[in-house]
Amino acid sequence: MTAAATLERPIDTTRLRGFVTAFADLLAATRDEQAILDSGSALLARLIATDDWLPQEFAQPNPDRYQQYLLHCDSRERFSVVSFVWGAGQSTPIHDHSVWGLVGVLRGVEKVERFDRLPSGELVAQGEELLRAGEVDAVSPRIGDIHRVTNGLADRPSVSIHVYGANIGAVERATYALDGTPKTFISGYANRVIPNLWDRSRNA
Amino acid sequence: MTAAATLERPIDTTRLRGFVTAFADLLAATRDEQAILDSGSALLARLIATDDWLPQEFAQPNPDRYQQYLLHCDSRERFSVVSFVWGAGQSTPIHDHSVWGLVGVLRGVEKVERFDRLPSGELVAQGEELLRAGEVDAVSPRIGDIHRVTNGLADRPSVSIHVYGANIGAVERATYALDGTPKTFISGYANRVIPNLWDRSRNA
Ligand SMILES: [Fe+3]
Ligand SMILES: [Fe+3]
Ligand SMILES: [Mg+2]
Repeated sequence: MTAAATLERPIDTTRLRGFVTAFADLLAATRDEQAILDSGSALLARLIATDDWLPQEFAQPNPDRYQQYLLHCDSRERFSVVSFVWGAGQSTPIHDHSVWGLVGVLRGVEKVERFDRLPSGELVAQGEELLRAGEVDAVSPRIGDIHRVTNGLADRPSVSIHVYGANIGAVERATYALDGTPKTFISGYANRVIPNLWDRSRNA
Repeated sequence: MTAAATLERPIDTTRLRGFVTAFADLLAATRDEQAILDSGSALLARLIATDDWLPQEFAQPNPDRYQQYLLHCDSRERFSVVSFVWGAGQSTPIHDHSVWGLVGVLRGVEKVERFDRLPSGELVAQGEELLRAGEVDAVSPRIGDIHRVTNGLADRPSVSIHVYGANIGAVERATYALDGTPKTFISGYANRVIPNLWDRSRNA
């Protein structure tokens, strides 16, 4: 098979390409984290307001575990855009990020449980929240960085679009046992190819 | 099929990822075109010195015409990296680029014919050159921008890696008839998916 044939149906890449370039412009304009989270949340909310742009190849659940598909990584790894897909009943471990992140639900519902970690290492639950399609949440070491995300739907996948202030699949960070014991991990990505967002001749 | 399975064999993305980040660092450090071409040529020469990193999906000839596969595009479309694949006997039309570009031969031989264009619109041949695997050539409106590239091998494909100062597949530029008559074109890309260079967990 050829590269031209690997996406199962043609998708208009205009919306995701516009999001990537607008986010890059934002990062070129400011280094203030709160400004990035505020303006970035607005950009992400606009992206996920319509569910017609994610190629289905990057929305496929895996029966064994939630999937993390890279959609775009910046040339200097200053940010990355990722689709997360939870099958019915799937959840992440409790984990941190070590960089700022935005989570926007594209499809379905996600349950977010937040934790603080005491100087002793103990985890303290900070409550939970349901995020519905169209809603955006933020994390960072500054505002709170430890959470567990679970598919809020019992019978079908949920999909969210995440943006991070690094190449998140390559960041050394930690998962936590309920007693607070950390374990280093690097998530990687489920996909060996990412969408070509850049062919303006196709959707002009 | 799943995105994880679309590349036919695992390829170490370290070399191409390192090239992309080094090139982005170069563009962040200078806007002087000659400095970009000089330092960029050295980076490209190092990339093409070894032919073990291009996934075969992005080196496939097409019997009908030469192929242009996007490998990476910068978030702000400041540069792009492309593999060009010429089958036996294939060539480009005479064309310009409108931005700076570097051409490095990865595999095979390419014949480059250069042209000047007079104020009258007439094309004047400036000679031709054979570029062999490992060699790098530069173009730009400043130093000369019109050429035709032909596979220098009669019996098998040649492959070169190009870098341009824009998202080249989206740039409006021109092909030329032998009498100098221009025709606007936007090349686009042959591929709907590009390699995921960013999973450092795979090749750590
Ligand atoms: Fe998370
Ligand atoms: Fe050219
Ligand atoms: Mg960039």
